[in-house]
Amino acid sequence: MGLNGSSGSGTQPINRRKNLSQQIWDVVQLIGDVVLLWVLVLYSLGERFYRYIVPVPERPVKGEIVLITGTGHGMGKELALLYASKGATVVGWDVNTKSNEETISEINARGYPKAYAYYCDVSNKDSVFEVAKKVLKEVGDVSILINNAGIMPTHPILDQTKEEIEKTFAINVFAHFWTIQAFLPTMKKNNHGHIVALSSCAGLFGLENLVPYCGTKFAVRGIMEALHEEFRQEKNCKIETTCVCPYMVDTGLCKKPKVRFERLMPLLNPRYAAKSIMKAQQTQQKLVSIPGYLVNLNDFVRVLPLKAGLYIKDFINSGVESDL
Amino acid sequence: MGLNGSSGSGTQPINRRKNLSQQIWDVVQLIGDVVLLWVLVLYSLGERFYRYIVPVPERPVKGEIVLITGTGHGMGKELALLYASKGATVVGWDVNTKSNEETISEINARGYPKAYAYYCDVSNKDSVFEVAKKVLKEVGDVSILINNAGIMPTHPILDQTKEEIEKTFAINVFAHFWTIQAFLPTMKKNNHGHIVALSSCAGLFGLENLVPYCGTKFAVRGIMEALHEEFRQEKNCKIETTCVCPYMVDTGLCKKPKVRFERLMPLLNPRYAAKSIMKAQQTQQKLVSIPGYLVNLNDFVRVLPLKAGLYIKDFINSGVESDL
Repeated sequence: MGLNGSSGSGTQPINRRKNLSQQIWDVVQLIGDVVLLWVLVLYSLGERFYRYIVPVPERPVKGEIVLITGTGHGMGKELALLYASKGATVVGWDVNTKSNEETISEINARGYPKAYAYYCDVSNKDSVFEVAKKVLKEVGDVSILINNAGIMPTHPILDQTKEEIEKTFAINVFAHFWTIQAFLPTMKKNNHGHIVALSSCAGLFGLENLVPYCGTKFAVRGIMEALHEEFRQEKNCKIETTCVCPYMVDTGLCKKPKVRFERLMPLLNPRYAAKSIMKAQQTQQKLVSIPGYLVNLNDFVRVLPLKAGLYIKDFINSGVESDL
Repeated sequence: MGLNGSSGSGTQPINRRKNLSQQIWDVVQLIGDVVLLWVLVLYSLGERFYRYIVPVPERPVKGEIVLITGTGHGMGKELALLYASKGATVVGWDVNTKSNEETISEINARGYPKAYAYYCDVSNKDSVFEVAKKVLKEVGDVSILINNAGIMPTHPILDQTKEEIEKTFAINVFAHFWTIQAFLPTMKKNNHGHIVALSSCAGLFGLENLVPYCGTKFAVRGIMEALHEEFRQEKNCKIETTCVCPYMVDTGLCKKPKVRFERLMPLLNPRYAAKSIMKAQQTQQKLVSIPGYLVNLNDFVRVLPLKAGLYIKDFINSGVESDL
């Protein structure tokens, strides 16, 4: 919708059949809209400045039902423990039943709200829909969905096998569609919910040895931005989206990290990363990186000529080496 | 590689076992690298300014073998005609044999270098590899690969079927992997080649009714950026990449376009779009939009607060309506 509620009219030139007074009215409206746009852009700059001083309050997660994929280890496990410790009911999904049950037992042993482990292959739509139905019946309306599960084959493009490429997209991308389609109807029914997606700094800029992985993580960013746009166009839709792009986390996913400035940019501690993700969700950020400046640095560098960006990339000199 | 050729050392803190003189030397090197970085960034700004006045010369395509996917209609057809008219040997791939042969007959009838039609389902790796082998034997070493084929299901996320989502990724994304893996070895052997990918303005920012499509087009951008990074890290690699993000083109792909400023931003003429794509390839641009300012506008808007971007999006008010 336009700012004034007017909408386009397909491919028909708007002004063809309009008389002079209508045309003048169109111009007046346009000038009004341009002025309004400037005011709104200045307002948004002021608001950002204000939010540096008075941060957005963190929405409590107590009482929410949080579904997290890939809770068997790494970030998924950290997120499960963290959300449970803040009073959320946690539903953990993983294909590794043993490690998943360990995570959930650990939560239950600590006396947090009861947590639940389910076996689910998130790359399989039927599996997702079937288990989602069970969760909605046995636990309740999932209000926060965290698409965390992911894999990262790390080698040059010609060494990436068909099976690896397809599996990377199945887990890192398709799983988001299936879980969103499984839980969004309930969120819409309640007009309450939050969809969180784990992208990566490899979803902000391209890195060698990670051609398919970068493809999946850019895709997640596109999916989440388009999804947010759909929710925004619905009147009074209160469903939130958050897309998170962490730098390399020290969970073992990244087997051969390459870091030049290890004091400035060490691998992220998983607990710190989990806290940052929860904070981004609680403050309803749409797109954040961990550390926060990465997304801003990337935006700034993209305004410069491409070559400047490549020189900066060479200077920072971080990435991953082939695992072959 | 770092600017000075130094590389990181895994997760081991670099300075732990270094003595004072080594540490001082590290700091001197770092200062040198920072100064060099500033010089290089300024140089890249100067070069961009210079290139406004003296554009990059267009590399002729005469004698090149250009493989284009989706030549049966729309942009693929326009590109085939255009490249042939400039003296390139065109190999056209499509699943629609009839319309594909019409395109190729049209080229051959005009007296351009002989053009070739092949049936290929680009979403099927076996099909791609089989037909690629035939092309390399029957026509010769493909030196320019243009991944153009694409589909665009346009409706809200909950109405996108599993089959649609998978097919959109199979054609818009996986096909890029299979064709790249099929033709890159020859390009590497000759150290000569160019991979062109069609992304979209929906690969620059999220749009409603296009959640999976935006996913695929963001993915293409990530894939091409990572691929370029791999080529750049190889010494003396002369294989180029170009990723193109056109605004809506008037080819019928976009069934219900929504445009507010139709005089300023009309649907693109397919011939104009084809010319822009060829020019981007001939001048070895890494990422371009059509019109060119879209990518710059997007980069600029991303530096502003998110809300400012949304106000600007509402002001421009262009996109596509659901085709349901």
